[in-house]
Amino acid sequence: MNFGIPRTLYDDVHEQFRDTVVRFIQSEVLAHYEAWEDAGRTPREIWKRAGEIGILGTSVPEAYGGMGGDFLFDAIVLEELGRFGVAAPAWDMHAYIIAPFITHFGTEAQKCEWLPKMADGTLIASIGLTEPGGGSDLKELRTSAVRRGDSYVVNGAKTFITNGHIADRVLLATKTAPEAGAKGVTMLWVDLHSPGITRGKNLKKIGNKAQDTAELFFDNVEVPADCVIGSENEGWRVLMHGLVQERLVVAVRSAVIAEAAVDQTIEHVKQRKAFGNTVFDFQNTQFKLAEMASDVEVARPFVDRCIELHARGELDMVTAAKAKLWTTELADRVLDDCLQLHGGYGYVWEFPIARAWADARVHRIYAGTNEIMKYIIGRQL
Amino acid sequence: MNFGIPRTLYDDVHEQFRDTVVRFIQSEVLAHYEAWEDAGRTPREIWKRAGEIGILGTSVPEAYGGMGGDFLFDAIVLEELGRFGVAAPAWDMHAYIIAPFITHFGTEAQKCEWLPKMADGTLIASIGLTEPGGGSDLKELRTSAVRRGDSYVVNGAKTFITNGHIADRVLLATKTAPEAGAKGVTMLWVDLHSPGITRGKNLKKIGNKAQDTAELFFDNVEVPADCVIGSENEGWRVLMHGLVQERLVVAVRSAVIAEAAVDQTIEHVKQRKAFGNTVFDFQNTQFKLAEMASDVEVARPFVDRCIELHARGELDMVTAAKAKLWTTELADRVLDDCLQLHGGYGYVWEFPIARAWADARVHRIYAGTNEIMKYIIGRQL
Amino acid sequence: MNFGIPRTLYDDVHEQFRDTVVRFIQSEVLAHYEAWEDAGRTPREIWKRAGEIGILGTSVPEAYGGMGGDFLFDAIVLEELGRFGVAAPAWDMHAYIIAPFITHFGTEAQKCEWLPKMADGTLIASIGLTEPGGGSDLKELRTSAVRRGDSYVVNGAKTFITNGHIADRVLLATKTAPEAGAKGVTMLWVDLHSPGITRGKNLKKIGNKAQDTAELFFDNVEVPADCVIGSENEGWRVLMHGLVQERLVVAVRSAVIAEAAVDQTIEHVKQRKAFGNTVFDFQNTQFKLAEMASDVEVARPFVDRCIELHARGELDMVTAAKAKLWTTELADRVLDDCLQLHGGYGYVWEFPIARAWADARVHRIYAGTNEIMKYIIGRQL
Amino acid sequence: MNFGIPRTLYDDVHEQFRDTVVRFIQSEVLAHYEAWEDAGRTPREIWKRAGEIGILGTSVPEAYGGMGGDFLFDAIVLEELGRFGVAAPAWDMHAYIIAPFITHFGTEAQKCEWLPKMADGTLIASIGLTEPGGGSDLKELRTSAVRRGDSYVVNGAKTFITNGHIADRVLLATKTAPEAGAKGVTMLWVDLHSPGITRGKNLKKIGNKAQDTAELFFDNVEVPADCVIGSENEGWRVLMHGLVQERLVVAVRSAVIAEAAVDQTIEHVKQRKAFGNTVFDFQNTQFKLAEMASDVEVARPFVDRCIELHARGELDMVTAAKAKLWTTELADRVLDDCLQLHGGYGYVWEFPIARAWADARVHRIYAGTNEIMKYIIGRQL
Repeated sequence: MNFGIPRTLYDDVHEQFRDTVVRFIQSEVLAHYEAWEDAGRTPREIWKRAGEIGILGTSVPEAYGGMGGDFLFDAIVLEELGRFGVAAPAWDMHAYIIAPFITHFGTEAQKCEWLPKMADGTLIASIGLTEPGGGSDLKELRTSAVRRGDSYVVNGAKTFITNGHIADRVLLATKTAPEAGAKGVTMLWVDLHSPGITRGKNLKKIGNKAQDTAELFFDNVEVPADCVIGSENEGWRVLMHGLVQERLVVAVRSAVIAEAAVDQTIEHVKQRKAFGNTVFDFQNTQFKLAEMASDVEVARPFVDRCIELHARGELDMVTAAKAKLWTTELADRVLDDCLQLHGGYGYVWEFPIARAWADARVHRIYAGTNEIMKYIIGRQL
Repeated sequence: MNFGIPRTLYDDVHEQFRDTVVRFIQSEVLAHYEAWEDAGRTPREIWKRAGEIGILGTSVPEAYGGMGGDFLFDAIVLEELGRFGVAAPAWDMHAYIIAPFITHFGTEAQKCEWLPKMADGTLIASIGLTEPGGGSDLKELRTSAVRRGDSYVVNGAKTFITNGHIADRVLLATKTAPEAGAKGVTMLWVDLHSPGITRGKNLKKIGNKAQDTAELFFDNVEVPADCVIGSENEGWRVLMHGLVQERLVVAVRSAVIAEAAVDQTIEHVKQRKAFGNTVFDFQNTQFKLAEMASDVEVARPFVDRCIELHARGELDMVTAAKAKLWTTELADRVLDDCLQLHGGYGYVWEFPIARAWADARVHRIYAGTNEIMKYIIGRQL
Repeated sequence: MNFGIPRTLYDDVHEQFRDTVVRFIQSEVLAHYEAWEDAGRTPREIWKRAGEIGILGTSVPEAYGGMGGDFLFDAIVLEELGRFGVAAPAWDMHAYIIAPFITHFGTEAQKCEWLPKMADGTLIASIGLTEPGGGSDLKELRTSAVRRGDSYVVNGAKTFITNGHIADRVLLATKTAPEAGAKGVTMLWVDLHSPGITRGKNLKKIGNKAQDTAELFFDNVEVPADCVIGSENEGWRVLMHGLVQERLVVAVRSAVIAEAAVDQTIEHVKQRKAFGNTVFDFQNTQFKLAEMASDVEVARPFVDRCIELHARGELDMVTAAKAKLWTTELADRVLDDCLQLHGGYGYVWEFPIARAWADARVHRIYAGTNEIMKYIIGRQL
Repeated sequence: MNFGIPRTLYDDVHEQFRDTVVRFIQSEVLAHYEAWEDAGRTPREIWKRAGEIGILGTSVPEAYGGMGGDFLFDAIVLEELGRFGVAAPAWDMHAYIIAPFITHFGTEAQKCEWLPKMADGTLIASIGLTEPGGGSDLKELRTSAVRRGDSYVVNGAKTFITNGHIADRVLLATKTAPEAGAKGVTMLWVDLHSPGITRGKNLKKIGNKAQDTAELFFDNVEVPADCVIGSENEGWRVLMHGLVQERLVVAVRSAVIAEAAVDQTIEHVKQRKAFGNTVFDFQNTQFKLAEMASDVEVARPFVDRCIELHARGELDMVTAAKAKLWTTELADRVLDDCLQLHGGYGYVWEFPIARAWADARVHRIYAGTNEIMKYIIGRQL
């Protein structure tokens, strides 16, 4: 669709980088995507290729092997992954959610050791918060880390771990001071090849099928004390810090997903015949698309302003929550209407709209459910 | 949930039959369901077992090997399949959509030959309407059947054929009088083991994964002339006849799916902890469930009246369209809210709500899209 | 619109009564309605005429001057008032909400004295619950009634009193045992012509303009002790008893309002020209009307079953809450879409759809807000 | 509510003007507003005062008695009128819709004569398009203007004329070339004090009660030929030109109405008690407000970008249609939820939310119905 309001966010350097990202996706990702879905995971090679292209280090400082760009470069990657329906590999998680924790809270030694490997794709990262039977409530966390000499001994279990099967490291939320509730949580950077770790089954999901999702079990796992990210019992503060960006990441992707769905649907209904016309010729089709096109046009200046503010470090928690809430609701609403306009084809996996519909459903749930977003927004009114 | 308005539709005989159906599903279907999903099809044995139980012949006359019941018995099967999330085998298609065509339009010889085999599950049926690149518009049908001696020679292709891989026969819409548009269509009862038939790939879908969905290709396939169902060029009339029941079948299932989803969700949120309470304790949860419980309670007397009228042959096309439209919108709305209340679990395939959400999405599309329902309802106002 | 599912609720006697009601509305109400709206109240004469017709005593026992019918007769009056957009006089409040309190909780003397006057329209009743600055929370009630000899002395204020200006009596919720919270409430049947009572201004409202809505102020008002309805401190039980019927009254009216709106709109769009067609010819119009027609058709069997159960005394509180919630949401949704299809005419008061839209908005608020309905439904799931 | 995304549209000069407008509204408008509503019209004096303040000439060139500002000054007036619920006088119509036609299409003589009087409020303007029984379809226009010497003789009728009773002039769409359809329309600037003009009744409306809305009848009315605005038979082109601004005017107002409603509601629910808490304390209240606050926050950057583009003459027809569609749907959705959170107070006219809800309903209808917006948006996709 044509947007009536031009974007003003990006300059030529950004757009050149976008071209690189697009070419990479088109030439090295799309052709293999179905195979990765069937496998339920992505191969290590594509991570390395992404590292070479620069996708994994856009905002990692140059001193640690990255591009040293601002969030706008991250946003470009997110936009193009979203536009092409590339829900895996979970580069957003790896590069824009986990790497910033190291950048921001890591010691110089940690940054020197881990960021280059994360930026070049030789180390795949995951993050472990949710526990079986519990949620992401830090107060209720039961995975324990007990200091013993120069190490912590970790026991417990985690679930819903994106990249959990393919990852080399997990940034693990552990309870180091059980009596202190949320203030007794420590983030440990755990080697997933350590003895005592079992990776459970690869959870079947509605969508995002090329992303592996693991349960992880920790049985007396020894983690060196220099693998604390942030300080002991400061896990809560570490995690808080990441929430604005984590939610904006979802919002940036969601806005683009909605745009792409509208575009695909316009194209589909214009060539699809029904009862002597194209599907586009029906007033219902045009009215539904007009509603969606309006929604999508309205979303754009809002999301761009969020990106702009965040790149300057000025996006607050509540506005990020609004962005995550609003864009994910938008995307799922638009995807559902778009799927419907595809008729039977919309239900067939090989059509991008089917995959996008199934993939996006989790966006209203993860990075804090939309109910949690409403809670955050509501309480400060 | 507790319904405040008691059902008055069924008597003891019906309820006894329901018990049989439930026991059968619990003991012989559920345990194998995931394996069937992985295989993308259901095994012939379960069809035979369903035949033994009586599920496939509820409304087939006793003279032809069925139970000779009215539509209420069909409805019971549909309700229990829906309640337990059993979207495959496609017994509804086989027994309540295809078999009635034979019962109603078949010659005595056809009924004697085919109905007993359909009722006992030794013959699996499918129906072929939609064509690649086209829709279900009979005017645009391109699969041709040309009379040659005692046979028709069939050429063309069909897609979205439920049971297309496992079926023995397909009730095929063919064009016998190309110049006559929708009035030149003939239904042929085609042996899928005939020379010249190729079964294409098994289409991957968003849900209904244990149902095989085929493309079928016909290359000079000879079909004996006594395999016409109805008369030559009367395919339109044959298909019209089935639409009321076809749409009611979807409505009956959809109403129950919504009920079951609400029940599962109540159970889930009552045991699931979050932030020191159960999820049920949150006002948002209770309000959402209250809205859904109201929707579901309202649907019941309406659907029951439709079933009652249809069992007496008094349900008209427009009311059936309203039933299909309204209940499928209801079910998808309810399923989406229920999935959300499950949080991350709602996205994981092993939870019934995830599967139900994905399975049900096609209900707004098949048996006539909901846009077609609106067209049917709207034009007669 | 044509309903596909015939109603089975009423017999010939009911339908004859309906004819009487319809003729009365058409001949004696509609012509004066605008004048009553301008006056902000209805004249005493029309109450007396309604009494003569039998509208005010449908379910009052014959021994006390009524017809002695069941709730089905009440429902017929409600349906025809709703269908013709007659939101005032507030006969539903007078006859179906207040009179039953006297019938059920009144002493023989009270019944003999008051019911005949209420049934023949010589006494106009109102009910006083809500207080300025408070809501309808009985615990927080501040209007006090203090026993002194054979009387109670009442002090306080009420607001939102339907009929408050034209009424002769108010059934007043008073606090007789302040320390007992909701269990210290007594219902007094107060003569509004008593010394010490001031009737405040007639509140301007969005709609229901022919209904007067008063603030009432009580300054040392003496009320004879034999004017307690129910027993002292049992006001809570009295009020509870009426809630099922009160909410069903709203539901019955709402379902009919939605039906009438659809009918009016179909008629309007079929004769209204736009861009060379009628408005009905646009697909958007037909699709919107199809959605509404489906909603309205679905509502009917549900509401009829509620009426049927209630006439047998079997409708429970939760189901009544569902009925009130669902039908009022339905009606406002339908009215809004219908208004829109009227274009500019929909905003002009002389068009029934405009008045209906404005009148009905309060239905989601009174008789317990729809939020309270959700609370009631949700907590018992 | 707090906005997380700062506005960047206005500079200090704008904000100083805003202060002037706010003080004027607070001191000279609000106190009289109810009286104007009761009268169904606004007095001439307030128009003159608005002229003195500058409100009526913000964007009229200085040479013709105006401020010579850009659209941002108009937007400020619109925002403050919307924020304070001032739906009348119809200064937006007069100053931002009609005056620009004179500015853009008027001859030097016309501009010199009329613009100063419009800017200082001594001349009140209206515009006459819609005809009884017809709509705003120019093709179907039946009001005729026949050239006779130096005049046109006008016959016909118009309806829904805002300011029709108090106006001195109407910009009247007439048919001068009946056979030419929409291309035979001429805009005449007609003196409403001319012989042959009858002003019909003041139409009662759902809201906007201080705005008079007239039917106008023309019986051989002589209009001097120098009162053509644009050229003969170019009425279509004149009207087209104004559509972008007309729709943006509605959008600017609607976005602010939604913001104000949220603010009023937050304030109301925080002080209103229910069941031992404030209404704000309920999760449902906070969640509803969170949804609305998100909607309203998202709208702002979009509307501001539209204003910015329009001030540069770069806003296109389709984007203006999106703005009008989206913001009016937003406002009515938000107002309805806000009204509900007010409980019974929301239905009482003296509460701003009640009036705003009733006033705003016409926004989805006028300036082109939202169905027409969808048509405009849809066809260019």
